Amino acid sequence: MRIAISQLNFHIGNFVENQSQIINSVENAKEKNADLVIFAELAVSGYPPRDFLEFDDFIKKCYLSLKEIAKSCVGITAIVGTPIKNKTGKGKNLFNSAAVLADGEIQCFRNKTLLPNYDIFDEYRYFEPNRSFSCIEVNEKKIALTICEDLWNEDDNPLYVENPMDELIGENPDLIVNIAASPFHYKQAETRKKILCATAKKYNLPLFYVNHVGAQTELLFDGGSLSIDSHGEILKELKYFEPDFEIFDTENLESSRCESVVKPKIALIYDALVMGVRNYFQKLGFKKAILGLSGGIDSAVVAALAADALGNENVLGVLLPSQYSSDHSVKDAEDLAKNIGMPFNIIPIKELYETSESLLKPLFEGTSFGLAEENLQARARGILLMAISNKFGHILLNTSNKSEAAVGYSTLYGDMNGGLSVLGDLYKTEVFELANYINRNKIIIPINTIEKPPSAELRPDQKDSDSLPDYDILDTILFEYIENRLGPEEITNLGFDKNLVNRILKMVNITEYKRFQTPPILRVSTKAFGMGRRMPIVGKYLSQIS
Amino acid sequence: MRIAISQLNFHIGNFVENQSQIINSVENAKEKNADLVIFAELAVSGYPPRDFLEFDDFIKKCYLSLKEIAKSCVGITAIVGTPIKNKTGKGKNLFNSAAVLADGEIQCFRNKTLLPNYDIFDEYRYFEPNRSFSCIEVNEKKIALTICEDLWNEDDNPLYVENPMDELIGENPDLIVNIAASPFHYKQAETRKKILCATAKKYNLPLFYVNHVGAQTELLFDGGSLSIDSHGEILKELKYFEPDFEIFDTENLESSRCESVVKPKIALIYDALVMGVRNYFQKLGFKKAILGLSGGIDSAVVAALAADALGNENVLGVLLPSQYSSDHSVKDAEDLAKNIGMPFNIIPIKELYETSESLLKPLFEGTSFGLAEENLQARARGILLMAISNKFGHILLNTSNKSEAAVGYSTLYGDMNGGLSVLGDLYKTEVFELANYINRNKIIIPINTIEKPPSAELRPDQKDSDSLPDYDILDTILFEYIENRLGPEEITNLGFDKNLVNRILKMVNITEYKRFQTPPILRVSTKAFGMGRRMPIVGKYLSQIS
Repeated sequence: MRIAISQLNFHIGNFVENQSQIINSVENAKEKNADLVIFAELAVSGYPPRDFLEFDDFIKKCYLSLKEIAKSCVGITAIVGTPIKNKTGKGKNLFNSAAVLADGEIQCFRNKTLLPNYDIFDEYRYFEPNRSFSCIEVNEKKIALTICEDLWNEDDNPLYVENPMDELIGENPDLIVNIAASPFHYKQAETRKKILCATAKKYNLPLFYVNHVGAQTELLFDGGSLSIDSHGEILKELKYFEPDFEIFDTENLESSRCESVVKPKIALIYDALVMGVRNYFQKLGFKKAILGLSGGIDSAVVAALAADALGNENVLGVLLPSQYSSDHSVKDAEDLAKNIGMPFNIIPIKELYETSESLLKPLFEGTSFGLAEENLQARARGILLMAISNKFGHILLNTSNKSEAAVGYSTLYGDMNGGLSVLGDLYKTEVFELANYINRNKIIIPINTIEKPPSAELRPDQKDSDSLPDYDILDTILFEYIENRLGPEEITNLGFDKNLVNRILKMVNITEYKRFQTPPILRVSTKAFGMGRRMPIVGKYLSQIS
Repeated sequence: MRIAISQLNFHIGNFVENQSQIINSVENAKEKNADLVIFAELAVSGYPPRDFLEFDDFIKKCYLSLKEIAKSCVGITAIVGTPIKNKTGKGKNLFNSAAVLADGEIQCFRNKTLLPNYDIFDEYRYFEPNRSFSCIEVNEKKIALTICEDLWNEDDNPLYVENPMDELIGENPDLIVNIAASPFHYKQAETRKKILCATAKKYNLPLFYVNHVGAQTELLFDGGSLSIDSHGEILKELKYFEPDFEIFDTENLESSRCESVVKPKIALIYDALVMGVRNYFQKLGFKKAILGLSGGIDSAVVAALAADALGNENVLGVLLPSQYSSDHSVKDAEDLAKNIGMPFNIIPIKELYETSESLLKPLFEGTSFGLAEENLQARARGILLMAISNKFGHILLNTSNKSEAAVGYSTLYGDMNGGLSVLGDLYKTEVFELANYINRNKIIIPINTIEKPPSAELRPDQKDSDSLPDYDILDTILFEYIENRLGPEEITNLGFDKNLVNRILKMVNITEYKRFQTPPILRVSTKAFGMGRRMPIVGKYLSQIS
């Protein structure tokens, strides 16, 4: 049997485009004599459709789309992910399903059993779990058809009480198909391959795996669909970060075996972020970005990424120096813009800051320069950037990093503005790594930008290190708290100063209110701020420790 | 048996305070010769603790707290909600549990079976459902001990495949206890009473129900704990929107019967919002609020609510007129401030707007006055309000309503600023109702504020009706789309103009990116913007219909 894996970039709720992509791919598979073509989980709707799933109208549109796709499935079988109604009269309204299409019609469905409901996943919000198990048959081959998480219950402390493959294996299937929506983080491909290879080996069956590719706002799908032999060895990985299409012959799997190249973490992150920015603009129908260039490393890295994603001519940099900006700030930013070849403007904010200050003078009489005045500068910049954004229809890119977002070292409605946060899931130390990666062939980010001590430049001679510990220490403590969910004692026991740990954790906790209003953040780690991390704002845990 | 219901206002993660409240209440129950005292779901941690549940340290603190509470349970039994570890080795790490405390020790646990995972609920994110059923025994009475949702599976199309009471009834219990966390919306108390009364009647058992009271950021718990007789008739409702404590004698339930008073929708909403504002400030440790007073109805209603919640002297109004503000705006706002007796300041924004404009002139050359310039004014106001907020530690209250939030008729980083959105779950037509309610005894909100046509006053002679349909039509269409999840055809079929419906739904869909960055919104309806409504930003559904 010839099995085609079709790895596509869908657009949530864009039924016209998703349907036409799938039908084109079915035609392509037919031309290449495939017997079966497989598409990703919830392919007709895009993943994740979130609360659109609660609209009958949306589910109806999925079904109509599926019927159209079925019409093209003559002389070939297609497996397509789709939500369907639960007609059992009990439980949630929907199943997360794999439709089997052949002979121009919908033949049957197989529903997802294990519904991920952690981190960025909310599937139990919408779907009832499957409770009945049977293989499908295509060209006299028995296929154990599973959906994503169905194969992710393998370790010593399983997250679910059922295991779908243990049910299906009793029917002696010939192969496993898994249609998935497995979003990127920088360790995900590695974990995914380990789990899928272990599954193929355990059940002694070849496995064909199809993933989404492309970005859906904060979620980045890296593709990397797979064919695996029955010994649990990878035959071939499909492309990462771009659509791909491959055909495998189950009678001659060896012929498709080829070496896979594993990219280092920072290269994966770079590719993921470029795709994230590019898809966000494409899917919203925008072409141009704007961002403030401070001369610092965060905005420099965002500018370089955006230029790669959108084209250097489509990224407008605005330099917004204040009286506290150092001389090198403007020069570093100009050098960057010239290296990238992107347009830029300079608008000094001094006058705007002074006007605000004078308007507030009667109220602020007798107080001294402080946080309010620092924030005023960041907000003056925000106001000007947003005005340009509104005037010309450019999307403002946010340049905050994860370290400053974590401790609240940023100004709400100031530098926290933006339609999309590009670096919000990268610690400052990782931003430095990314800058060096961007400079790997030639200097794009000025050396001075990388080497000078980080500063917000909101008061004379300010340095980040005035109020924060060194970033290597800060980032490690934050990682243990955010990614590893260790408590204060556990982190202190790793060898950090107790007062420092408590101070940092308290900063994270009392600034939840700021992150509540953050733009969506491109997710590259196992625990990004945003939909995958849900914290109470009025919560007192850790905010009163001393 | 004498059963005490203790309805308390917990604070998420504030173990010291929650524990001491519970212990005080146990002592109180002992003094009053109660045999059993019941506390709400997840009482030790507060509800919802959200992702704090993923921290072992947090779970350990819950357990330590529980052990301390148990020490006070001598001569009395207490039932206390708490998260506990799942030690079965399979499934999620935790159970949502009811601990039974007596003789100074933790006696046993009963875990929650039905885990709500819709709207604002995420319980399956953390908890494994219970699968074994048995009653507990207190003073030789058999009690069917259930947790909140466990009793909410009663209608013709049940959301779950199990029904815990059907399992427990086989043991012939003497009564039902339900410990709950049932957040307010304006129909919730009614639904709750209907479901609980039906349960008592169906199983022919008296039912004792304890709820949370108090606000946890956006979630408002209205209390209204209940005792119900075995005929399904309410014996007594505990207080709404404040802590309460009542004792019931199971041998003489009739003596506690008393009439309940049902308040109208708008009065419930008023009470809920006042509690919401008050608790938000209390739990974060703030005393004072600031808001912009435009002379319009939204800011007037927020000011009145905040003055009731925090004290009139603790609410600072700032009038920020521009060249486009009408004469009556300032007068209406001043009249309001005087009626309320709240302090206010006037800061005209003309100069700030003009400075911004002149800085942008080189870039904006050849363009005409438009959205960018309108937004510039809203953001100039935002900058000044936030500066005062930062300088004096006042929390900025957001004054947006649900209608404008829905269609994006508001400025991100301008009038969308704030620590808390007070009216974000009220349609404009409901804001008018609330204004009239506030004025029920004397004029607080100036009549002119209520009677003049709504206007953003961002360009000469602007009216909301220039760009939006009448609010009664707009609000009905929005309600059908947001609360009832009807699609465009279904709404058109209700008798609305197709183009108008499509235009409004498109406005809602393309402005998800704005609402993503909205402050938390006090939830009073069945479907509020925020944690209970999760929409994709890049989604194309309905944004391309015409």
